[in-house]
Amino acid sequence: MNSFGEHIKLTTFGESHGVAIGGIIEGFPADVEVDENFIQSELDRRKPSNDKASTPRKESDRVEILSGIFEGKTLGTPIGFIIRNENQQPNDYEYLRDIFRPGHADFTYAKKYGHYDHRGGGRASARETATRVVAGAFAKTVLQKKGIEITARIKQIGTAKTPDEIDRLIEQTKADGDSVGGIVECVISGCPAGIGEPVFGKFQAKLAEAMLSIPAVKGFEYGEGFAAATLRGSEHNDVFGTDALRQAQGPSVEVKPATNRSGGILGGISTGQDIVFRVAFKPIASISKPQQTVDKSGNPIELINQGRHDVCCVPRALPVVEAMTALVLAHFFVPKKANKLSSRTK
Amino acid sequence: MNSFGEHIKLTTFGESHGVAIGGIIEGFPADVEVDENFIQSELDRRKPSNDKASTPRKESDRVEILSGIFEGKTLGTPIGFIIRNENQQPNDYEYLRDIFRPGHADFTYAKKYGHYDHRGGGRASARETATRVVAGAFAKTVLQKKGIEITARIKQIGTAKTPDEIDRLIEQTKADGDSVGGIVECVISGCPAGIGEPVFGKFQAKLAEAMLSIPAVKGFEYGEGFAAATLRGSEHNDVFGTDALRQAQGPSVEVKPATNRSGGILGGISTGQDIVFRVAFKPIASISKPQQTVDKSGNPIELINQGRHDVCCVPRALPVVEAMTALVLAHFFVPKKANKLSSRTK
Amino acid sequence: MNSFGEHIKLTTFGESHGVAIGGIIEGFPADVEVDENFIQSELDRRKPSNDKASTPRKESDRVEILSGIFEGKTLGTPIGFIIRNENQQPNDYEYLRDIFRPGHADFTYAKKYGHYDHRGGGRASARETATRVVAGAFAKTVLQKKGIEITARIKQIGTAKTPDEIDRLIEQTKADGDSVGGIVECVISGCPAGIGEPVFGKFQAKLAEAMLSIPAVKGFEYGEGFAAATLRGSEHNDVFGTDALRQAQGPSVEVKPATNRSGGILGGISTGQDIVFRVAFKPIASISKPQQTVDKSGNPIELINQGRHDVCCVPRALPVVEAMTALVLAHFFVPKKANKLSSRTK
Amino acid sequence: MNSFGEHIKLTTFGESHGVAIGGIIEGFPADVEVDENFIQSELDRRKPSNDKASTPRKESDRVEILSGIFEGKTLGTPIGFIIRNENQQPNDYEYLRDIFRPGHADFTYAKKYGHYDHRGGGRASARETATRVVAGAFAKTVLQKKGIEITARIKQIGTAKTPDEIDRLIEQTKADGDSVGGIVECVISGCPAGIGEPVFGKFQAKLAEAMLSIPAVKGFEYGEGFAAATLRGSEHNDVFGTDALRQAQGPSVEVKPATNRSGGILGGISTGQDIVFRVAFKPIASISKPQQTVDKSGNPIELINQGRHDVCCVPRALPVVEAMTALVLAHFFVPKKANKLSSRTK
Repeated sequence: MNSFGEHIKLTTFGESHGVAIGGIIEGFPADVEVDENFIQSELDRRKPSNDKASTPRKESDRVEILSGIFEGKTLGTPIGFIIRNENQQPNDYEYLRDIFRPGHADFTYAKKYGHYDHRGGGRASARETATRVVAGAFAKTVLQKKGIEITARIKQIGTAKTPDEIDRLIEQTKADGDSVGGIVECVISGCPAGIGEPVFGKFQAKLAEAMLSIPAVKGFEYGEGFAAATLRGSEHNDVFGTDALRQAQGPSVEVKPATNRSGGILGGISTGQDIVFRVAFKPIASISKPQQTVDKSGNPIELINQGRHDVCCVPRALPVVEAMTALVLAHFFVPKKANKLSSRTK
Repeated sequence: MNSFGEHIKLTTFGESHGVAIGGIIEGFPADVEVDENFIQSELDRRKPSNDKASTPRKESDRVEILSGIFEGKTLGTPIGFIIRNENQQPNDYEYLRDIFRPGHADFTYAKKYGHYDHRGGGRASARETATRVVAGAFAKTVLQKKGIEITARIKQIGTAKTPDEIDRLIEQTKADGDSVGGIVECVISGCPAGIGEPVFGKFQAKLAEAMLSIPAVKGFEYGEGFAAATLRGSEHNDVFGTDALRQAQGPSVEVKPATNRSGGILGGISTGQDIVFRVAFKPIASISKPQQTVDKSGNPIELINQGRHDVCCVPRALPVVEAMTALVLAHFFVPKKANKLSSRTK
Repeated sequence: MNSFGEHIKLTTFGESHGVAIGGIIEGFPADVEVDENFIQSELDRRKPSNDKASTPRKESDRVEILSGIFEGKTLGTPIGFIIRNENQQPNDYEYLRDIFRPGHADFTYAKKYGHYDHRGGGRASARETATRVVAGAFAKTVLQKKGIEITARIKQIGTAKTPDEIDRLIEQTKADGDSVGGIVECVISGCPAGIGEPVFGKFQAKLAEAMLSIPAVKGFEYGEGFAAATLRGSEHNDVFGTDALRQAQGPSVEVKPATNRSGGILGGISTGQDIVFRVAFKPIASISKPQQTVDKSGNPIELINQGRHDVCCVPRALPVVEAMTALVLAHFFVPKKANKLSSRTK
Repeated sequence: MNSFGEHIKLTTFGESHGVAIGGIIEGFPADVEVDENFIQSELDRRKPSNDKASTPRKESDRVEILSGIFEGKTLGTPIGFIIRNENQQPNDYEYLRDIFRPGHADFTYAKKYGHYDHRGGGRASARETATRVVAGAFAKTVLQKKGIEITARIKQIGTAKTPDEIDRLIEQTKADGDSVGGIVECVISGCPAGIGEPVFGKFQAKLAEAMLSIPAVKGFEYGEGFAAATLRGSEHNDVFGTDALRQAQGPSVEVKPATNRSGGILGGISTGQDIVFRVAFKPIASISKPQQTVDKSGNPIELINQGRHDVCCVPRALPVVEAMTALVLAHFFVPKKANKLSSRTK
């Protein structure tokens, strides 16, 4: 349950306030040059930064790679890595020992495990997504060689859809000591037709699982998504058309869908068109505004979160959405090649 | 990729126009009485019936259980079962041999496998969901003993939300030779707090994967879902309150969330409240209305589907949504008990 | 726990005295012609036959393939199959209801499951190996195209090592109403170098797991095996030598081990030489000779098995050893090709 | 392929001459006190020490635990740990860059991966077993609470079976610049009846897989092992007898096997008796004695290994055999409890 993917597989560990977080990447092919600067640069995209939605904290977040690479190239063996957590003052968190923070997982972790780390989310903290970004960067290294690009962008924050609107909303929300949700749209381009599996292994099922495993995600849709529920078959079906192909042996035509209402997937398998999906994020649970709740004994209290909090997780979530998408794609990579006997026997 | 679940695990096989479909259910506990009539009755809920959205075809769909039960009780060994397909006339499908049907998986299966069964969907046909319903019925047998109920209902068909509206919409769509999509809402009640796993094994991730593996599903959301994107933290957070408990040793209080905007899950783990999610279905791809498309050689043709087609898959999808939910719950069942050492050692 | 293999994966079900046994083969590549006569002929090798060690029972054992093949070629979808059990008279087994047969799994199944099928082994019966032989035949179909041959032979029965000795031993044992064990040696030829995985996925670990999963197997060794414990490094190491290669661009040399004491595997990965291993079988537990034991209540009884019993399982085990070996090889097939990026991207 | 176990699962990474080796232990129950000194002490048992068979190298091998423990008790989350490798001089290994060492995996790693670490075994080095010992120590922590003890001992080194004989053999082999193999016998006591799974998940299959995954292991047998091949059924079967039980409600009898030729397992499931198995180790491949071999270009060379080498791996293998056994047992722990519905629902 700490692993994602089958062929390129990430297994992670680490609590937000423990010694370190880290992971093991298995299945990465041998003899591939790895640019460690690219890996770190992807991780840097996830840092709180100058964007208005994040706090100007200092987190150095350096990834240390411990195995799997020799003389600049992969060995085909597992890539172990860690990211040390910054030292924190344990006393800073004593006030949380007897409280379940509203909207956080303290309550459910206590119910499940009996014993949990009250110092800020532990394993449920979004901090664990840093390990996903590291693995996603490795996956992207392979995907880019195949001409596959993954691009996540902010589609909406609150009800705001344009940059100006969004900036104004963020500022107002921050001034109110509050937080706000949003929607990310992600496009996979360059994915060939035939990727994905029937029945339980459908491409969209793996994407949905990947996205809903990201903290704060409340929904996933692809293609027309929820809007498809209101359409008729004659409006939604993508009929087929032709593309002219110039080939060595003379001109020919390629048959493919003429439109892309399906979002690039039919029957769980890619059509070769852009794959388009959207992910809904709830507002961040930690807000500066006081909240009226009860402590673990049931006594009414006013919770005032200490420290500074991001106003919206969506900007920092973009590299996480891309990383999980890259891991899903990596996952489908090898099975695809294995489908026809000819590709194995040659 | 033909399996779902870990602790109660279903593996399926079968094409819609092959000899039979079927499956193997592993991990079902030993020494449990099984009511084969209940299994069959769940399967019967999936049959095309008198509801206005389905065609009045005759499909007998009898499940034959081949192993795993002895003298009326389970053996703890795998439960093998088959459902024979009805005999069909192969010639009925010859007109489809050179066509990729719009909105169907013929195109992507051809791209992936090279060789596919053109006679109506094969493995991509919704017919395979019958095997899920059988396994779901076994899972429900266990869940009911624990007081867990799963109820899926039609939330919306097209834009219609009330029974009258819906009936009228279905009739009009049928008259037009068209089809229409819809939304299913599902509620899990009686699920105790503490079910689910952190990080990649989040309850909602498994539900999303399960739902997006169902043919025709385009989206999944839980709790406030996509609407959460437009809310503020102070609006969305469920603060905690108390419930009076009457216990042998005197009255006490239980702390739990006072509202349920989260949809019954926090940090991937159940809160003990109702778990609420919604699933969007696209309109059925097979419509009676002629469609202008091209054949496999790129020649323009007018496709006229033969046979009769359901107008909307949503009514028949209800037992499938419930079955997949039951398999997700069954999946979490054993891990939950294993979390604390005490529950193992006793 | 009812599955074997990852890339070509068999999942089985069925008790020896239930309705049917069967299985699902996943991962078999698409577009491969399948000779159903070959599948049945492999299954026929497992039947009790004229060899002196088996009883002349009649078992028809016809495999029925239910899915995954269309117009003579595989679809890339799961291959479901069943083998019906012959009708038996339930009363024939009533005398076993209150007895744990010595050397059989009745006792441990009762301890584990509470409820078990007393009519002759159930899931623990060697009858389940018929499903392995079916899947192994599919695996062989692919392996043969790659020039890989698997050959199991009788190395020893009791202490007898030559055909004459063996025949005499079998006859004497049968006359005594007893049974006897033996050793099978299996050779894989044509397996290229580089197959297998490091650490937990070593080729020999998968072979050992496969062999010890066969009923009645008590030991596994490869290469020099247990004898290697008595050797020195200077005796056991295979030093390297050269082979002349005739190639288009002129003669060259290939470096490879000059001897094969290692049994064709180093560090868990194949060397390209013959892979050689041996498997020890215990004597069959069912014997005609009366046995002094106690019933389930602890009362002393003399158990006299009814029916006829094989004297030695080794002759019928040969196709099972080969089938499990084929499944191990199939398992390593795809990962091997995936190790170098180049083989994926082309 | 870098993971072992399902319910308590270890995933490892690391090359012998990289930055660090390490692993992630998943599935360890929450709220268990962990004695880090015990973990380190198990690791210390694997160090080269004063025993005559090992070299007096200095390896500090300190395990650093990075996650999964908070305030002295487990969190139920993954336990990440690393063991840093000692600094080594890269130039020490340049002479190995163009050589495949006899009996080592250099050759097969080169064939499989194209690119490999020539500095002493990399992932194939027995150094990786240190991570197994760490995970095994965690598993033992749980098993000891259940009264299960695992004890591995030297049964034989070369042909020597008594301590005196063995010491003399080791000294002579060292003087000869050679190495020698041996046999380890392991006994599991306190394991209740009913542990293990039918068919592919047999207890012995998991033990065999575990043992054959240890570097240098060439064979596995349990109970009578290879000797069973020479026995008759009437000699090998364990008939049942009774044990007097003193219980609250009056004396009663327990039925169980009266002898233990089966080695504590029947039909893949434990009988409740001692589980006894043996593991054969080949002689260490690195020897001081010069070896006549060829380099990668096929030129004849005399290989003289530099550095000091153990004479026999068996003494240091004892904690590794125990650790892998502990992981197998941990693996069976949860499924056992899940077999009967009653143990879940209570």
